[in-house]
Amino acid sequence: MDYQHVQVPFEITLWIMLASLAKIGFHLYNKLPSVVPESCLLIFVGLIMGGIIYGLNDRSPPVMDSDIFFLYLLPPIVLDAGYFMPSRPFFENIGTILLYAVVGTIWNVFGIGFSLYGICQVKAFQLQDVSLLHNLLFGSLIAAVDPVAVLAVFEEIHVNEKLHILVFGESLLNDAVTVVLYKLFRSFCEMPAVKSLDVLAGVGKFFVVGLGGVLVGLAFGLTAAFTTRFTKDIRVIEPLFVFLYSYLSYLTAEMFHLSGIVAIIACAMGMKRYVEANISLKSHTTVKYFMKMWSSVSDTLIFIFLGVSTIGENHEWNWPYICFTVIFCLVWRALGVLVLTFFVNRFHVNTITGKDQFIIAYGGLRGAICFSLVFLLPDFHRKKLFIAATTVVILFTVFIQGMTIRPLVDLLAVKRKRESAPTVGEQIHIRFLDHLLAGIEDISGHWGQYYWKDKLEYFNSKYLQKLLLREHDQPKSSIVLLYEKLERKHAIELAEAGQLAHAPAHPALLNNRAVIAESKLEDTLNLDILDNIQEILARNLYRTRRTGPAYNRHTLPGETEPVEHAKEILILRHRGL
Amino acid sequence: MDYQHVQVPFEITLWIMLASLAKIGFHLYNKLPSVVPESCLLIFVGLIMGGIIYGLNDRSPPVMDSDIFFLYLLPPIVLDAGYFMPSRPFFENIGTILLYAVVGTIWNVFGIGFSLYGICQVKAFQLQDVSLLHNLLFGSLIAAVDPVAVLAVFEEIHVNEKLHILVFGESLLNDAVTVVLYKLFRSFCEMPAVKSLDVLAGVGKFFVVGLGGVLVGLAFGLTAAFTTRFTKDIRVIEPLFVFLYSYLSYLTAEMFHLSGIVAIIACAMGMKRYVEANISLKSHTTVKYFMKMWSSVSDTLIFIFLGVSTIGENHEWNWPYICFTVIFCLVWRALGVLVLTFFVNRFHVNTITGKDQFIIAYGGLRGAICFSLVFLLPDFHRKKLFIAATTVVILFTVFIQGMTIRPLVDLLAVKRKRESAPTVGEQIHIRFLDHLLAGIEDISGHWGQYYWKDKLEYFNSKYLQKLLLREHDQPKSSIVLLYEKLERKHAIELAEAGQLAHAPAHPALLNNRAVIAESKLEDTLNLDILDNIQEILARNLYRTRRTGPAYNRHTLPGETEPVEHAKEILILRHRGL
Repeated sequence: MDYQHVQVPFEITLWIMLASLAKIGFHLYNKLPSVVPESCLLIFVGLIMGGIIYGLNDRSPPVMDSDIFFLYLLPPIVLDAGYFMPSRPFFENIGTILLYAVVGTIWNVFGIGFSLYGICQVKAFQLQDVSLLHNLLFGSLIAAVDPVAVLAVFEEIHVNEKLHILVFGESLLNDAVTVVLYKLFRSFCEMPAVKSLDVLAGVGKFFVVGLGGVLVGLAFGLTAAFTTRFTKDIRVIEPLFVFLYSYLSYLTAEMFHLSGIVAIIACAMGMKRYVEANISLKSHTTVKYFMKMWSSVSDTLIFIFLGVSTIGENHEWNWPYICFTVIFCLVWRALGVLVLTFFVNRFHVNTITGKDQFIIAYGGLRGAICFSLVFLLPDFHRKKLFIAATTVVILFTVFIQGMTIRPLVDLLAVKRKRESAPTVGEQIHIRFLDHLLAGIEDISGHWGQYYWKDKLEYFNSKYLQKLLLREHDQPKSSIVLLYEKLERKHAIELAEAGQLAHAPAHPALLNNRAVIAESKLEDTLNLDILDNIQEILARNLYRTRRTGPAYNRHTLPGETEPVEHAKEILILRHRGL
Repeated sequence: MDYQHVQVPFEITLWIMLASLAKIGFHLYNKLPSVVPESCLLIFVGLIMGGIIYGLNDRSPPVMDSDIFFLYLLPPIVLDAGYFMPSRPFFENIGTILLYAVVGTIWNVFGIGFSLYGICQVKAFQLQDVSLLHNLLFGSLIAAVDPVAVLAVFEEIHVNEKLHILVFGESLLNDAVTVVLYKLFRSFCEMPAVKSLDVLAGVGKFFVVGLGGVLVGLAFGLTAAFTTRFTKDIRVIEPLFVFLYSYLSYLTAEMFHLSGIVAIIACAMGMKRYVEANISLKSHTTVKYFMKMWSSVSDTLIFIFLGVSTIGENHEWNWPYICFTVIFCLVWRALGVLVLTFFVNRFHVNTITGKDQFIIAYGGLRGAICFSLVFLLPDFHRKKLFIAATTVVILFTVFIQGMTIRPLVDLLAVKRKRESAPTVGEQIHIRFLDHLLAGIEDISGHWGQYYWKDKLEYFNSKYLQKLLLREHDQPKSSIVLLYEKLERKHAIELAEAGQLAHAPAHPALLNNRAVIAESKLEDTLNLDILDNIQEILARNLYRTRRTGPAYNRHTLPGETEPVEHAKEILILRHRGL
């Protein structure tokens, strides 16, 4: 027997197998997953396994390696999140999300950091040696809401789309802030004296890290889309490029100390539309399926490792510090959400209700990112205290908050997600209203979201599609695509129910051909009418407005500009009054 | 910038990316792949890259790591080969394949080893220090036909199914022989004296390594099938189990020094049938697609690495030895195929023609397995000579034989693969004949392949299906499954061509409902008839024979045994005369 030789792949495979079998096990009892979130069960399995390892070996079980977490386990989950991100609600609420992610996280970091420093001044707790900088450093790693934990819980409770995207979007985009603050305070801790210039540089880094991530992601995403233009003859490796380019975007961003999470999300969202149009239907099924599978396995492994790593002797149980950490995390988040939402609601018609605010505050779960960051801290004499506090906060949020959020959502009667997908009629109306609003914004000179969406759409169809799509001369409208998809689904359903008309396939077995011929004529007529409707809707709804010279500044800029200038001046003056 | 941190995954991703882009590049020019096999082009890319690395660094480029090859690159290719192996021709020709794989490989090893030892005795070549054992060791690694190289070339030339399975099956199953002989001679080289007991133990190992691999593979395959019984609620991780269990079977076999290739093939062939029935259609698409994708990437990487590793200074260019190695490889293989086929043809009605024999002998390509084995040799003063000879043999077979085999197949007018899939009618006839032959063998008491197939089928439906299938009480006949698949395909085609009958979906838009109702009645009638035919064929064709007491020994053994015994005695006596 030669175990050494196969050890590494064998153990990795066994861990993945264990995780998958645990997942199957939970679903065998249908009642269990509806009461306890899967993440809790997985941490529990991890705790048991950690206990067994600890009992057998009499030393701490291996701790989850931060490198493994950040390089291999996190990217699949974030890629999945970015690729399946509903782009419409995301961009509609991007302002609110950014406010929560940037201002909210900074608020939490400083709030938690300063109040914990206050606690440290109480002599009875024996914590006077923890400096303000160390408290702020701890605040920076404990403040960030974790996308993996949020996803695991919110996927199961089905709250309405807006609420979901607010919490989930925040948890993804706060990565840029966390990265900057964590690294800033870490370097400050090692510096002899902190100059004001360093603080200024830190503020500048926010923009570099966040926007740099977006740019890296978009660059790789568009390259991926461009590459899939040429895969027509080797369909079999098409799915690969989606994974390769997004992973490269993450690694490149990490290499330059930018936000990898932001990069991979930008990459996924940027390429999705073009890749989908370029690759074959089966490739796309594979991409979607494998992404879900991969993220599901990563997610499972993370929670199990989290449980295993909790057991051991690397904790310092100073209970006052730990308890106050949990309390401050809850209090500052609740305050932050209240204050920020107050400002958000003043500028929006569609306000965030009190119930929603409660769920946003209560849904701020912490997870494996905090855990990995605390282990990445440089060694100093209170590191074990921070590890213990982080562990307790994670277990508290995942177990207590994660398990009670579903009953609370039921109790408060928070607005749920609508069950059915929008009908074709609704889609057409939404699109129609979009164009209408873009037109109104165009006329009124208000540069709102519809204006920018329209601009982007124009740039996309004029330049990007030509460059990135294989069959760019006839881009299919999304309504036509939806129609085709529905047709295909309908056909499969018919075939599976055995209702498919066999007229063309087995004509010899039929007695009365004339009847069939007539019914076929009916069908074709029917189809023709439908096709006409689709065509008219898909093509003309957009183009009529675009080609109308009076409202448009793209096509005939020379003629319309003076008029529009005048209008804008008028409107601005009107506002000024 | 922090390159160290992301180096490992970044470089792996870049290599895969380079391989995939190279693949796309070749297919952009349609003429290139039709003249030169892809494997040659990839080795060429590797040679250029190796040259660049050599030129820039002024030292040998990194050599393909044998561990990486055997643990990570080879399994996906073999899994793909095993999973998509056409089981009917494989089992029909299993005797011939085993003869080629076992006897043929031993013949080649000893033939090449002894004749090279003869060459070493020629004083002019300065090779007297290469012992007989070293020559045999070299023979054992150079004799084995490589599945990766064979697959890459034979997939492109489309010879008939039997010829393909003979070469390909041999290349897969000779792994057991290669492993045993290679390890045997390696240990002999390090022993002071070889005893006859060691040789006997070596012979016994053949069976252990081969059969052990089969058993390990089947055990994991059946466990995989059993596991997929319980994945109904979490469809998304279904594909994972196919990959995890087959990889575990490979690693476990390697751990116990059994044949990993044989294990993974047995695992894939064992689980395929049950897994396919248990998992959802989309999961199955993902499994198939991802397997193809993965094996395609592995294959590409192997050939590129082969090219890169060729460049460098670890070669000893003793041309007489190298040239004679190439010649002996060709000659002994040709002789072996001639002699073995002579015996095979005496016992078969469907003989292997002269043209087929030529292609079998000529298609014996060597590849990355030889290359990895030669680098795994313990250091001794002539290792560089062996490396040089192996490199030349691989390049000769892949480039010269690989590029000329297609014109030769055209020139000799070797029987090609039939383009179209068998019709439903043909499938029914084949199945009917199978049952007929099984019945004839049953009556005549001849225990041939149909008899064993029938036994296995009985065991499968009686025990295995009940244990391994989720819906075991109604196992669908393969004809019904095929029919459903055709229906589904047909429906999608209709939907894509816009010909789908909309009658049930949009009744309001139709003028004449009566006509439709009538035509629907016709369709249902038509479907009913078809369904009846299918049902009758699928169920009764098999059962009538099985339940007939006179010909069967499964159902009523007590009653029929005496009659059959008498029959068997009669037949055996008849033969004896």
